[in-house]
Amino acid sequence: MSAARLGYLGPPGTFGEEAAIKADPRAEHVPFPSHAAIAAAVEAGAVEQGVLAIENSLNGSVAETLDILIHDSTLDIQREVVVHVVHNLIARPGTRIEDVSVIYSHPHAFNQCRRFLAERLPNARLEASLSTSAAVEAAVAGDLGAAGIGTSRAAELYGGAIVAAAIHDADNNATRFVVLGRGKQLPTGHDRTSIAFTFTQDRPGSLAGVLDQFARRGISCSKIESRPTKAVFGEYVFLVDFVGHQDDEAGRDALAAIRPLCAEVKVFGSYPRAE
Amino acid sequence: MSAARLGYLGPPGTFGEEAAIKADPRAEHVPFPSHAAIAAAVEAGAVEQGVLAIENSLNGSVAETLDILIHDSTLDIQREVVVHVVHNLIARPGTRIEDVSVIYSHPHAFNQCRRFLAERLPNARLEASLSTSAAVEAAVAGDLGAAGIGTSRAAELYGGAIVAAAIHDADNNATRFVVLGRGKQLPTGHDRTSIAFTFTQDRPGSLAGVLDQFARRGISCSKIESRPTKAVFGEYVFLVDFVGHQDDEAGRDALAAIRPLCAEVKVFGSYPRAE
Repeated sequence: MSAARLGYLGPPGTFGEEAAIKADPRAEHVPFPSHAAIAAAVEAGAVEQGVLAIENSLNGSVAETLDILIHDSTLDIQREVVVHVVHNLIARPGTRIEDVSVIYSHPHAFNQCRRFLAERLPNARLEASLSTSAAVEAAVAGDLGAAGIGTSRAAELYGGAIVAAAIHDADNNATRFVVLGRGKQLPTGHDRTSIAFTFTQDRPGSLAGVLDQFARRGISCSKIESRPTKAVFGEYVFLVDFVGHQDDEAGRDALAAIRPLCAEVKVFGSYPRAE
Repeated sequence: MSAARLGYLGPPGTFGEEAAIKADPRAEHVPFPSHAAIAAAVEAGAVEQGVLAIENSLNGSVAETLDILIHDSTLDIQREVVVHVVHNLIARPGTRIEDVSVIYSHPHAFNQCRRFLAERLPNARLEASLSTSAAVEAAVAGDLGAAGIGTSRAAELYGGAIVAAAIHDADNNATRFVVLGRGKQLPTGHDRTSIAFTFTQDRPGSLAGVLDQFARRGISCSKIESRPTKAVFGEYVFLVDFVGHQDDEAGRDALAAIRPLCAEVKVFGSYPRAE
């Protein structure tokens, strides 16, 4: 089913747009300035779905998205999409790598391309940008010798040429996105379910007791994370992804068994596993 | 005991320097360009200790530091330090808030001051910098109308004046740092221990079984996190902080009990709890 409108973290030409195209190529892709703005637009019905980054294989969880799911959202996770992060060195067509004297990008992209930059462009000046897309736009519009680090889609959008492709250090750099919308998805037989829960007081064994309810039903937990709540490093919300659907027999039983053990349980959604 | 030399994530005037000053005011504070470079300098004996950000109350764990502890480090966590993040609007002395037309900072700082910027400076242009310190330096050296978002220490270092203090949105924005060095710390009675462990295969109940070993000895786990290893979102390393010392009776017993349950257990260190 194609959503009429699908919100993503803009601007166009970033990995957010790549995730939106992968999630639903035929939808109208609408850029928003923050993850919170995407979720608010879905809540208000301004768009039918929104795609939010939730986890990067190198950088870990995206805290903003977790906090939206925990505290603000009444939406369901309906899908997940994995985008492999590929950084490219992009410049005005005709630029050679030996011409490059200044490089624009988001500080994260510089961190992820450190080895390439040290080996191939040790003397180039690094200038920060607010997004990889803005970096490519500035580089293509700039002087000869300016380059930006960004996606091939950004090169396309701004008329840039790829001077060096796939310049990121680590091959296992991927970002997992979730698609938020209204309504539960039906079980497919290869689903994942994301939940959050809290305890009234921090007692040794509380968490082990909850995980045991999944274990005794043969359910694997594919991810677990504690996240500080309001207080600074004080109380925690626990986030768990488990293999299966909330409406499978095992999943439904496990959720019923943990509710009496927790202060609160929130199910973010059950959705087909991407890989 | 004062370390002769204490490495931190530079440049001077960032929260890394604040953490170094708080950890050991009398040490020589040596800036490094990355967390990996700090750890490598301690390993090589170029500095005796290094201070690395490990967790932010809003943004979650610092993946780079976790990966150093998991994969690269032979060092011990010897201390923890909590720094409360305070962002200030800083400019050349004499600048009033109504003069400000362009603001420099690290993209994270813009995200953390979004409400202030929208309410007080909705028309100012935002320009990214590689650090809050570089932002303040550029602003103070720049035209009238330029301001940077950074620490009061950066204002001091670069001769800037604070135009608006404490402009960050959330009050509970704090960063936890760990001090890495060589040698275990003695128990103090109010310690925390950080460990990582893996399993040979992902079986339902593996994690619950480990947590149960802590629970049955009355040990609280103050933090838990799963982190993808080499494979993309495949195998996981589990990170746990527990209350107590690895050489306390309960802590020692729990660690001995979990070793046969895990493929690998790595103790990062036991150290006094900061708060």
